[in-house]
Amino acid sequence: MSHISKRNRLVLDAIIRLHHRGASAPLKRILAKTHASDLAQILSLLPPNEALEVFHAIEDTHQAADCLSELDPELRERILRETPAEALFPVLHELPPDDLTDLIAEQDPELAERLMEGLDETSQEEVEELLQYAADTAGGIMTTDVFALPEDMSVEDAVEALRGLSDVEMVFYLYVVDTGKRLLGVISLRQLLLARPEQRLAEIMNPRVIRVRTDDDQEEVARLVEQYRILAIPVVDEAGQLCGVVTMDDIVDVIQDETTEDMLKMAGTDEAEMSTQSPLKIMQIRLPWLFAAFLGGLAATAVIDHFEGLLARLLALSAFLPIVMGMAGNVGTQSATVAVRSLATGHLDLSQARGYILKELWVGLMLGVIYGIALALASLWLFGDPDLGTIVGLTILTNMTGAAVIAIILPMVFHRIGADPAIATGPFVTTAIDILGVSNYFLIASVILKVL
Amino acid sequence: MSHISKRNRLVLDAIIRLHHRGASAPLKRILAKTHASDLAQILSLLPPNEALEVFHAIEDTHQAADCLSELDPELRERILRETPAEALFPVLHELPPDDLTDLIAEQDPELAERLMEGLDETSQEEVEELLQYAADTAGGIMTTDVFALPEDMSVEDAVEALRGLSDVEMVFYLYVVDTGKRLLGVISLRQLLLARPEQRLAEIMNPRVIRVRTDDDQEEVARLVEQYRILAIPVVDEAGQLCGVVTMDDIVDVIQDETTEDMLKMAGTDEAEMSTQSPLKIMQIRLPWLFAAFLGGLAATAVIDHFEGLLARLLALSAFLPIVMGMAGNVGTQSATVAVRSLATGHLDLSQARGYILKELWVGLMLGVIYGIALALASLWLFGDPDLGTIVGLTILTNMTGAAVIAIILPMVFHRIGADPAIATGPFVTTAIDILGVSNYFLIASVILKVL
Repeated sequence: MSHISKRNRLVLDAIIRLHHRGASAPLKRILAKTHASDLAQILSLLPPNEALEVFHAIEDTHQAADCLSELDPELRERILRETPAEALFPVLHELPPDDLTDLIAEQDPELAERLMEGLDETSQEEVEELLQYAADTAGGIMTTDVFALPEDMSVEDAVEALRGLSDVEMVFYLYVVDTGKRLLGVISLRQLLLARPEQRLAEIMNPRVIRVRTDDDQEEVARLVEQYRILAIPVVDEAGQLCGVVTMDDIVDVIQDETTEDMLKMAGTDEAEMSTQSPLKIMQIRLPWLFAAFLGGLAATAVIDHFEGLLARLLALSAFLPIVMGMAGNVGTQSATVAVRSLATGHLDLSQARGYILKELWVGLMLGVIYGIALALASLWLFGDPDLGTIVGLTILTNMTGAAVIAIILPMVFHRIGADPAIATGPFVTTAIDILGVSNYFLIASVILKVL
Repeated sequence: MSHISKRNRLVLDAIIRLHHRGASAPLKRILAKTHASDLAQILSLLPPNEALEVFHAIEDTHQAADCLSELDPELRERILRETPAEALFPVLHELPPDDLTDLIAEQDPELAERLMEGLDETSQEEVEELLQYAADTAGGIMTTDVFALPEDMSVEDAVEALRGLSDVEMVFYLYVVDTGKRLLGVISLRQLLLARPEQRLAEIMNPRVIRVRTDDDQEEVARLVEQYRILAIPVVDEAGQLCGVVTMDDIVDVIQDETTEDMLKMAGTDEAEMSTQSPLKIMQIRLPWLFAAFLGGLAATAVIDHFEGLLARLLALSAFLPIVMGMAGNVGTQSATVAVRSLATGHLDLSQARGYILKELWVGLMLGVIYGIALALASLWLFGDPDLGTIVGLTILTNMTGAAVIAIILPMVFHRIGADPAIATGPFVTTAIDILGVSNYFLIASVILKVL
């Protein structure tokens, strides 16, 4: 349920009115004039039964297809289940192969099979081909609708071919292939227009094509598209044959999804939470992440219990537990977040790891000195105990420095071993910093109070 | 210093070798064959002096311009300062107006003025026009190079005009305007190709153009481009006159920047940290955010000190401080992060605030019951004190529920009053949850131990 504009609110009201009145002709006219993306939003605000009826009133199959692929998954499933085949399949055939594949892949096996059986043979083959690629690879996000022509074709014939295209999603580039369908070069639509009609495509193409392999990770695809600022990137198989193309709008989805994944992992939950409304399911998603924090908390309890004698002697030590833990946790979150984001945007290169660690060491040390002195003075003023001031001051200094360094090292280690650096700021590691911090606090207290 | 590919590493080695040998002709050939974006990366890995010399060896001004706009800011400044005017300005004139404006705006006033004076009159006017818009608005990210033609022009003449374009960055759409330059419609390049030569543009254009105003926020621009999956969005002024266009590659930058900003604010720091290497500067950026946590920590200290008598009576209470605070903090971070991300991607609509709050209430309650019982049992097993078990169990239950609810409400409140919801998970609010949690803990202990 995203934010609804005033205009869409008016269209929604009109649709409800016309639909209730059974005014079919004006309803169809207003639907035809509304953008598919707006229609999807409007339908999601109607009761499911009415949404289904209004969807059936959309006459343009292309518009219906665009609308269908932007609907909420639940409403989409309902439409797929309850629309008669003769109305449904003309709409499905308007979908680009990648969207059609995603739509079928998200349904349960029985419905997915029913949908596959109703498709024409070409679509079936396209979907089957796309289904073999993992969802988070170039193959999984590409569309097979790609505008490719042989190298020896003339510009004139290529323009004719472009005119004849009907269902290619978005065309910006013309890819040039050899007789074995291997990718040779790329030509922008504008270059095509500028060329003389009799020129061969091989003469005007740019042979240095930035490309990805079907099994490349979608993050790598996004990185290349961002780096080279291209609108579409061709996808080839291991033999160099052109299989499809990933367009910029898919890249934006990849970037948003990867970021959501990072942010939710950093918070100690999962992107699955974004797509469910059920408190029970959300609870189940969060429960295991919190278990790490629970076990860590119990370990901290055991540490403190171990130093019971120390606490009994200087009760005020417990009053500083929240600030001693909080300051280290905060500086750790700062360092780790900068590291995770820098790794995700390609700003952090592991070959320079030593420099980054030294930098964080200095930052942690400076912040530790400043807040260590501040807390020592505050505690002296509150409790008038120089020993206590020394203890809390030294603890803040060492804990903040240590947390900053640990928090920069862990994301880099996770990245190096192929794990997701975002986990490095989740409850798991935050809790580890907590335990180390509490232990360090009581060790320093033991030394200063000569209890060891 | 982003990740460097094997291929770029080889090119880098070759460039170093050729440059040291003074082999100017082969160096120029290898530079000409390398993508501007790769060149920018390679130059950033050379010592600044050599990078400057290699940059001067790039012969194609267009390639040099592309490379210049992707360089590190420090190296770019050095090139701008130390390149003779007769070599520099042909390169600058190749930059699209928006990139040229960004480049000039980031220099200090003295250098910026020197650069402005060297530009030709047209470029000066374009830059001056763009400089008047705030950096985070549609006007601030648009380019003024826009392909617009009058409504009564024929398709044939439009194709001719397209052929004549030299410096328009990326063309996908042709915008149709009236004699007052007001935006009337849009035509894709493919529609232009498909039309009959004698048709007027007004006949084939799509009059429903999704557009933004120069003063619209860049986040709103990104939202529209994402929602409608368009490659470029035209920008108009208050009179409806076409001023420029924002292309998809700029949108990707906006999305990445806004996300970085969100993530770093959530961690209690600032995106300025990403662009500096100086530990002193980073320390200065983080210091004030940590001050909120410092003050909050002192407040928690005061709360605990206030309950000194209670602690003296039941010392084990202090051993549970880390887990009691940690569990609430973690569930709060989970809720707040989901809320912040949902608001940023338009998945959370304030009109349904009540539903979201109820959902989090249930999630917090369920997690609180489970972990409350778990901690009560663990404490009973560790300390054998039923009172202590009751206290920590009830505290976990109420703290987790409260934290989940506060953490969903605050981002929505921040969003409503126009502040950035991301701040709602920073140290400021985390600390507030800490203080409430500690207070609640000791209040429950007071009641159970009948000390009140």
